[in-house]
Formats: sequence, structure tokens, C-alpha cells
Amino acid sequence: MSEFTEDACTIALMPSGRRGQVARGTNLLDAARQLGVDLESICAGRQTCGKCQVLVEAGHFPKHALTSTPEHLSAPDGREAKYLDKHALAPGRRLACACEVQGDLLIVVPEESQARKQIVAKAATERAIDVQPAVRQVYVEVEPAAIESHGGDWERLQAALEAQWAMSALTIDPRALAGLQPALAAGKHAVTVTVWQEREVLRVQPGYAEGAYGLAVDVGSTTVVAHLCDLRTGAVRATESAMNPQVRYGEDLMSRVSYVMMHPEGTDTMHAAVIATLQTLAERAVVTAGIALDDIVDVVLVGNTVMHHLLLGISPVELGGAPFALAVSEPVDLKARELGLRLNPAARVHVLSCIAGHVGADNVAVQLAESPHTSSELMLIVDVGTNAEIVLGDNGGVLCCSSPTGPAFEGAQITHGQRAAPGAIERVRIDPTTLEPRWKVIGHPDWIAPGETTARATGICGSGIIEAVAELFLAGVINADGLFSETAAALSPRVQYVGRTAVYVLADAEQSSTGQPITVTQSDVRAIQLGKAALYAGVKLLLQERGVSAVDRIVLAGAFGSYIDPRHAMVLGLIPDCALDRVVAVGNAAGDGARIALLNRTARLEAARIARENHHVQTAVNPNFQTEFVGAIAIPHASDAFPHLEGILPAPSATPTERRSARRRRNA
Amino acid sequence: MSEFTEDACTIALMPSGRRGQVARGTNLLDAARQLGVDLESICAGRQTCGKCQVLVEAGHFPKHALTSTPEHLSAPDGREAKYLDKHALAPGRRLACACEVQGDLLIVVPEESQARKQIVAKAATERAIDVQPAVRQVYVEVEPAAIESHGGDWERLQAALEAQWAMSALTIDPRALAGLQPALAAGKHAVTVTVWQEREVLRVQPGYAEGAYGLAVDVGSTTVVAHLCDLRTGAVRATESAMNPQVRYGEDLMSRVSYVMMHPEGTDTMHAAVIATLQTLAERAVVTAGIALDDIVDVVLVGNTVMHHLLLGISPVELGGAPFALAVSEPVDLKARELGLRLNPAARVHVLSCIAGHVGADNVAVQLAESPHTSSELMLIVDVGTNAEIVLGDNGGVLCCSSPTGPAFEGAQITHGQRAAPGAIERVRIDPTTLEPRWKVIGHPDWIAPGETTARATGICGSGIIEAVAELFLAGVINADGLFSETAAALSPRVQYVGRTAVYVLADAEQSSTGQPITVTQSDVRAIQLGKAALYAGVKLLLQERGVSAVDRIVLAGAFGSYIDPRHAMVLGLIPDCALDRVVAVGNAAGDGARIALLNRTARLEAARIARENHHVQTAVNPNFQTEFVGAIAIPHASDAFPHLEGILPAPSATPTERRSARRRRNA
Repeated sequence: MSEFTEDACTIALMPSGRRGQVARGTNLLDAARQLGVDLESICAGRQTCGKCQVLVEAGHFPKHALTSTPEHLSAPDGREAKYLDKHALAPGRRLACACEVQGDLLIVVPEESQARKQIVAKAATERAIDVQPAVRQVYVEVEPAAIESHGGDWERLQAALEAQWAMSALTIDPRALAGLQPALAAGKHAVTVTVWQEREVLRVQPGYAEGAYGLAVDVGSTTVVAHLCDLRTGAVRATESAMNPQVRYGEDLMSRVSYVMMHPEGTDTMHAAVIATLQTLAERAVVTAGIALDDIVDVVLVGNTVMHHLLLGISPVELGGAPFALAVSEPVDLKARELGLRLNPAARVHVLSCIAGHVGADNVAVQLAESPHTSSELMLIVDVGTNAEIVLGDNGGVLCCSSPTGPAFEGAQITHGQRAAPGAIERVRIDPTTLEPRWKVIGHPDWIAPGETTARATGICGSGIIEAVAELFLAGVINADGLFSETAAALSPRVQYVGRTAVYVLADAEQSSTGQPITVTQSDVRAIQLGKAALYAGVKLLLQERGVSAVDRIVLAGAFGSYIDPRHAMVLGLIPDCALDRVVAVGNAAGDGARIALLNRTARLEAARIARENHHVQTAVNPNFQTEFVGAIAIPHASDAFPHLEGILPAPSATPTERRSARRRRNA
Repeated sequence: MSEFTEDACTIALMPSGRRGQVARGTNLLDAARQLGVDLESICAGRQTCGKCQVLVEAGHFPKHALTSTPEHLSAPDGREAKYLDKHALAPGRRLACACEVQGDLLIVVPEESQARKQIVAKAATERAIDVQPAVRQVYVEVEPAAIESHGGDWERLQAALEAQWAMSALTIDPRALAGLQPALAAGKHAVTVTVWQEREVLRVQPGYAEGAYGLAVDVGSTTVVAHLCDLRTGAVRATESAMNPQVRYGEDLMSRVSYVMMHPEGTDTMHAAVIATLQTLAERAVVTAGIALDDIVDVVLVGNTVMHHLLLGISPVELGGAPFALAVSEPVDLKARELGLRLNPAARVHVLSCIAGHVGADNVAVQLAESPHTSSELMLIVDVGTNAEIVLGDNGGVLCCSSPTGPAFEGAQITHGQRAAPGAIERVRIDPTTLEPRWKVIGHPDWIAPGETTARATGICGSGIIEAVAELFLAGVINADGLFSETAAALSPRVQYVGRTAVYVLADAEQSSTGQPITVTQSDVRAIQLGKAALYAGVKLLLQERGVSAVDRIVLAGAFGSYIDPRHAMVLGLIPDCALDRVVAVGNAAGDGARIALLNRTARLEAARIARENHHVQTAVNPNFQTEFVGAIAIPHASDAFPHLEGILPAPSATPTERRSARRRRNA
């Protein structure tokens, strides 16, 4: 998106409140997408499905600093006018896909036009990938059969592929074989052949054809994100996401393993559920991209070990207890139809390797995307999804481990915790002087101050609780041990006691959608401390194993990583000391890795090598883990120094009053 | 079966009339099977299903030369007695599976106990096959997972298979992978692994397990025959057959091709129909053998080119016209589930090669079984199914062709023709003196003379019409040109004129199930002449191509081959001159070849090599074919000599009267 220029228009979208600038002339459907509002669209902009209807609010809107009028959209063209007329739409209704933005606009998106009921943080980043896919199309001309010919048409196609493309020892999928003779007939012996790994023919189309697509899917415990990519150009043609339907069988991984232990058919049930979701995402993606399901010929799947096993229809029960044995660690290649996916009938699936019982294919994908194994700098990668996977290494070797952080970072087992969904408090600031909070909820652009009710909060998600605890510490409301300061209660009515238990009131009753105040309790702080201590202990184990005490670069990956402020992560002691500008949040690195493996077949070999060559460090059996864990409960740590937080961390003994004075002195 | 000995008992089975000798002590269910009568049995002889009930007729039966009494069966044992009592069976009823034959018996098989409603000529012959199957079971002990283990259980199983069985670079079927950890757990890390071609793991069972089975199936246009074999011992554990359900879409191959041309979904319809029949045969076979469907891990399929394509779901339309292009000629390996077969979930299927548009995998199987390519004698193999495939060769090279014989040899397009089914006249003798006929029908053991009505005929099948025409020629009723002799009508009322068209009355109205006489007409003779001329012309083309005029050995294969008398085949001129004792009918050689390929994996390579190395001679474009065809219309041939029929063939000019005198002189 361009910066504020003469050619930029401001768009505000209701009811989400999303607002931003787009270039004049932008298609309104695209503009909404750029601003994070996905409109329903089945016909892919052909002005036939009518799903993307929107309404222009006319008037001056000081809050959004814009003046909106229907004339700020291009006038209906013939096709749209015909649609509006034929379907007798209410005045002011437009098809977003047919409109160009010509000025500032306040757009109302009716409920039925909203594509997503949930906002997902994960999105494909623009990353340079050498496009050399496992599946590609080649055009060949085949010698016509003659009455004296030896062999069949498949043998003649093989000869043509050998002569014209130097491909030998090919096999052909039975479904593709059934399509061979009709394609040869229709193409007058010229055909386009879709080939997997120069080894198997997946599809034969008449004449010259173009269009081979693949899906890169990160199957998270909570969210499934699929990128539909053009295998020729590498372009992401659609990104679709959905809740993992297995959530209904258990929120976290262990409860899904327990579900299988107690329900013999649980593996099949959860396998079928997640496959149905993949199918839905594929079907949505082809509509968005305006292609056919038949054009999807390759799929790459990544996920944690439990997701990985369930995707393959393998029971995850062995992952639930020592020795946490994987059924398979090497990559798995199979046909999409064998998983029950209805894409091209011969479409392939490649599932990345797993490393160990709790370090799965998603982590391999993260490593493929972030490449610690080729880095000259020592990198630490922390991927907090449902569990934390920690990677430490450089081109001299890579270590990894998993750490039982518990579900607190995802908002579970927190008094007012919830998943990252609209209405969840995701960012928090606490004024160290007044101890008054400000926060943002997912789905609303503005910070909400005390007394404001423009957005009501439904609860606190993982990143919200992390920032809240860090801010409470920075404001001196809690001390390094995580205990509520007794003086803090005297300084602010925000800190209250319920019996002997202290709570901090983040949102008042009238700011909460439940009508109850949203608080951070002593036990919430404790849960975050335990989680971050486990994470830090894991990091420390890897540092010790490697024999170093500091790293050059820290990568925060995962949904957690894309929201969290590196400073808060370090203040809390989630990560070791490091220059703050050397800490980056990379978002959905697992999805990026999946996309790389989809678009580059050499990367699949690299991923398998990464998995084989990672040195996995067991946390469960390591005697040092408990020791490190205890030391890491304090904020940021009982003994480790954080020189890069100099001036940010309060003095160890400071009370809020002392701190207030110190800050005044510094600011003076 | 043993010859007449003191330990042999005579068994007659009603209503089929089948009769023969079995060894004393033979199980009655087995005895019935030996005599060609299949009793229903679902429990596989466990005396629980009660499907094999029979009744002993007591008394002396001069016609069958036996005295039958219930005491000639072993007394009911405890289990059978319990069943008879519990189900209150009528007195005299016995469970055949529980009885031993102790003397001569006349057994009545009630309708509900009869397994087969149609008798199929094809049956697995006892042939020595080196058992070295493509799928075998191996027992391995796998290193248990430990918390510090690298890799998953599949990688540990691979290591064990490499160390203990020297198998490397294995893959595993996804379904087998899902069963791996449960099997390791149940078997305490000892498992039995079913492996295909030392390349893919199909199944993992806990501990030591035994029992891997395969199906060898000959998919004929009319009949589908499946042999269930123990892959360890090579033993045939069950043979099941059924009508090819595609018959309803067209009796012969060309009408099935036409069906597909006119019905776009015809390929899928006929594919599904034949697969459903294979499924039924597999399910019947496992019941007979007392095993589970899960134990079937390999399948070999053979069939003509149209059957081959339809089995694979490939449209056969290209086979219906020049250049008769096969979709694929090389062998096809795939999973049974990909064809829709529900056997072991990972069961394999191997489909043998085809040679040319009209020389299919069934002919490759025949060549695999009869091995002309390794023979030092020059062999001629004639396989008449729905079309004729002709093979000529020895270890110096093999030629083949197909010949458009038309459907007459299968009883189609014959005035009273029918398929080989109970009631069809299958053998014919005509007295050259009286011109009176005798014949046998399928399902009745005795020859029927004029006036006898112990068995009524429903029509004439292929072998019946061949013998009838040959006998009419030998009796002088028709001459070498196939024309009814004018003097014959004067000599016998059997030869009648309907207008100007002569017919020979083979069965009188009262001997026919329809109440109408069964006749052989001039046009029937003409149809047989055209068919045999096409066959002979094909043989001649191969002889010319090879540059020889005679062969050392002739093999008659196919259902046609198992019924036909070599002498009649030569009298009619179906085959060239050869010593009669060098002409053999081998029955279902295609089924034998399928069984060989099932039990010996090297034979699969051999079959592929046979197909590649056969020199296919096109009859359709060969200018000599028409010339040879015209010469071969005469009986046995217009110009070729048949010295081995000396004394059998009548003198070319002989009339019935002259012949009668000549025969009297010879017999004097």
C-alpha cells in the first residue's frame, strides 16, 4: 500500500472499524482485503454471485477523518448495473468486485458479505523462493499410433517425454492413464503432461495447457492456514484459513491424544475432520483464484507431531507418553486421494519430516524458512504455538528441543483468557505513573482508554496476557517474584483484593462484553511465570548444550510471535538477553516453510536433511531442566543478566513511588 | 482321483447326474467338488452354517450301477448331531461337510445347497510352479523406541528389515503405517511384515503370523474365474467363477466397445460391474478357504484387451477401430483399492502386459503357461475365446496374431446357439450309416440317442456346433463346400428342407426344452466355415511369416479348447495338419498363466518380456489374409493336405452311399 499521497484514498470499513489508505483506482474488493476485511466472493469477481455486496455511507465522519459519498466509487458498469437491476438491490448497494475506489469512503459490509468470522494472524509473507516445483507441466508431441506400432499410447508418450524432455523410467497414475487417449485425440497428439518429480505422470491435457497449482498448508492445533500457489510463477493465488475442527475433541494436543485413548475411533474421527477442513479450504481457494479443483496437483502439509499423525490417519497415542515414539519421522509422500482429499484425482501430497516426539513438521518448516543451518550467526528460534519448540544453531550445527510451556500463552487457563479472536485484548499498556491501562482488542483499530466503550473486550488472548504481565511488572504493580505489590493497591483502585488474592482490573464492567470486569489475577501471573520459565529453561538447556551464553539473533515464530512485542518478551524473560533490534517476529514461519517446500523440490530434500541432522535435546529427562526452570520463574530471571534492558527494567527493589520519581528524573 | 480300486466308492449326485469314483474316507463336500458339484458352504466346513445339506437316497440304482444306503456315510459326530437336532432337520438330511464316504451313494443335492447355477469349464490345473511370490511375509524383531532414539518406529522397522532380511529402500503403504505402532505394541516389538517385491511394506501384524493369499483372475468376456492361492505353499485354496456382468451391456467385445461409444459413462459402468464381480468372487473364495479378506494381499489380472482396459477404467473405444491403439501395453502395477477392490487395504494388483490391439494379457498368460518361447519344438497355440488369438513359435522366436473369427464358436449367431451352460449340446456324433445323431448336454453325463428324453437340450454351444458340422461332413450330409448334399435328404428324414434351405434335425421337439426341434442349418454351417476360415487364414499367415508349412505341436486353449475333440477340430480345418497325438487341449491356460504370475515374481518379468518380444502380425492389413481366408472356407481346406486325417476324411467325391460302402469294406 502506498503512503499518504495525492493518489491515496482513505477507506473505513464497518463494522470491523478497519481503516487505511489504498491507491486511487483500487478495486474495492481488493481494497477491503488489503485492509484485512475479507468479503465473500464465489464468482471471483465476475459480478455474477452477488456475494460481495457493500453499502456506501454518505457524510462527513470526523472520527475517521473522511468525507464519504457514493460518487467516490466508480459508476456501475453495464454488467453490474444489469445485476443490480435484475436482483432489485436496495439503493446504495454495490458489488465490491465491480467498483473502483475514487475517493474517501465509509463502507458498511453487511453480515452476509463478510467472509471471515475470525481473523487469523497468519498470512503468507512475500519471500523470495526459487521456483523449482516438484510438479510441473511439459508440452510434448507424441507419435501417432499406426497399425504396425508396437506398444500402447502410454509407451509412445514415454518415448516422447524421453526424447523431448529427457525424462525416463516414468510411471503414470491410473487415473491419468484413463485420460491419456482422450487427451491425445482431442489434442491431435499434442498434449501437456503434468509430471511429479520427473517420475510420475499425474495428468495429461490436450494441446498446450497452463495451470498447475499447489496447496501449502500449516495445520495448527487451533488454526489451519492454506496457501494456494501457482506452481509456475510461485505466486500465492489465495490464502484461506479455518479453525481446526479437532478443537471440539480437545483444545490442546494432550486432550486430543486423550480423546483417542478413550475413543477407539478417535483417530479416524479427527483425521476425517481435519481432512474435511482441508477440502473446504481448497474449495474456497480455487473459487478465490478462479481455477478448478482439478488444477491442484500438489500439496505440502506441515503440523506438529500430533497433527502430523492425525493427518496421516495414525493414532497419536504413542506421542502421549514416554518414550514419545513417532510412528514415522522421514517425509511421507502419498496421493491426496489416499487421504480422502478430492483435488486433481492424481494430486500428490508431501508431508515434511518430524524431528522427535514433540518437535514436528511445523518446526522443520520453520527451520526451512529461517535457515539456522546455513546461518553464520548463532540463531535462536522460539516457536510458541500450543507447545514451545526451541531451536538454536548456525551452520556449525542445530539443536532443538520442546518445552512444556502449558497453554497459558494461548490464553487458556487464564481467568479471563480466550483464543485470539475478535474482541480479545491483544495489546496492553499500563501507565507507570497512574497505573491506568490502555488496550487494543482484535478487530478494532484503536487503543481503548479507561472509560471508553467504543470497543468492548471479550477476554484476553495470549499476547494480551504476556503484555499485561510485562506491563504490570514495568509499572511496579508486581515484583520480580510475580507477587502483587502491597503498595500498589494503595496507589490505585485498579489493584483490588478479592479475599487475600490480588487482581488488576484491565477492563471495567462497562468495557466488557460480559458486563463483568476483565482482570489479571495473581494466578494468571503465576501461570505466565511457569510457562515462560519452562520456555527459558529450554533455551538455557540448548545454550548449555552448545556451550554459549548469548546468541546473535532471536526469531519469534508462530501466531504468538506475530503479535508479541520483542521488548515485552524480553522484559518478561521469555527469551535471553539480546540487542532488541536483533529480535524479530516472523509470523507464520511454518506456513512459509510449507510454501518453500511446495515451490522448490530441492527444499524437500533440505527439510529432510534438517530433520535428520538436528540434534534433539530431551527436556523431560534432563536433570538441569528443573534447576533452570526454578531460576527462570523470576521476572525476567533470578540470576541471568539482561544488559540490553538497561533503562527499561526497574531497579530490583523499586516501589511504584520510587520508580515514578526515577522516571521523572530521567525524563527531566 | 484313484482308478477303480477296492477303496473306491461310486457317488452319483442328483439332479446334475454327475457320477464318479472317490476314495473311501473322502469328505462328502470334497467328493462332490471332485465330481464337479459345488455345494454351498459359508462356514468352511465348521458345521455351523448348514448350507451344505444333502439327502441320501436308499436303494439299488441299476442305471448308476450302485446300491446306496445312509450307512454308507459316516455316522453324525457330536457336532453334526447337535446341529441336526437343534435345527430339527428332516430325517435323512446330513451336513456334507461332516460326512465321510464309506460306500456307494446316490446323493440328492437340494436346490438351496447348490452353489453354482452354471458350470464353468475352466478350472485350475495342477501345474508345477516355483513358488517365489511377489508378496511374502517376514518375521522381524524391532529395536524398541527409547527416549533418546532418533527417528520413528517406521525407521526402526526399516533398520530391522535391512539387518535381518537385507531389504533396503523400502516404502510403507499409508494404511500399513497406521497399523505399525499398534502391531509393535501387541507383538512386544516382534512383528510379521508383508512385503511386496522387497520394495513396499503392505501389512504389519503382531508377533509371528502366517497367511498371505493372492487371487489369480482370468477376466473373460463371458466368464470370470478367480483362483485363491496360498502365497507360501502355492496351493489353490478356492476357485470361484461367475458370469461377467458386462454381458448385459453386450455379449461380445465389439458390442461392449459400441456401448461405450454410445454411453459416455459406459467405461465407468462396466468397470464398476466387473470390479463388483471380482469383489464377490474374492468374498466367496475367502469363505471357502476360511480366511479373511484382509489376508488377500496380491492379485494378478489377465483378460483380453477390452477386458484389460475396462478393468483399469480405461475406455476401450480406441480398440474398436484402426489403428487399434492400446492405451498401455506394459504391465500395470497398482493398489487393489485404487480399482475399488476391498481386500487387504494395501493389497497390490498386477495386470499383465498386452501385445497388440487384439492380443491381450490373457494371451500373454497363455504363453507364460505354455512357454512357446522356451520350446525346442515349433508350437502352434490357438486360443478361441470371444476372438481367436494365434501364436506360433519356439525358442527361436514367437509370432502372434488375432483373427476375426466372429462369435460362432461361442454359439452366438447360430440358429439354436447358446453359451456353454447346463442343457447346451456340447458333443455330437452322427452315425455315417444311419445319419442318426447322439449328443451330450452340459450337466448330464449320458449320451442321448434319438427318442431318449432323459435330458432335454436347450440349444447348441460352441463346441457342439463345431462337432455337429464336423460330423455332418464326415457323414457326408454336407460336402467339402459346406453345402447340404441333395442325396442326404433322400437317405434320412433328419435332413429336411425348409423352403430351399436345408437343415439337420439334431434333437427332436420332445428332446428339446423349448418343444421345438434343435437343428443345424445351412447358415449355421456357413457361419462356422467363415469362423474357421478366419482362424485357419491367421494360422497360415503365421506359418508363411515363419517360413514353415507344418508344426510339431498344437495347443488348443480356452474354454473352447477344453471341450473340443482335436480330431473334429482338424476334420473341420480349424487347425493345420499334425499328428493327432500332438494336439492337446489345455483348458484354461490363461488362468494358469495368471496363477504362475501370482506365485512367481520372475514370471512377471518373463511375461513382460514375452509381450515385448512377440512379433505381432497384423491380419487386417495383410493382403495374403483374404487369399488364405477364401481357400480355408472349404472343409477341411481347398488345397492344403491333411495326411494325418488319412482314413478319417471321406474321399472328396464320395456321396453318403459310396461312403457307406467304403466304410463297410474297410471294416470288413
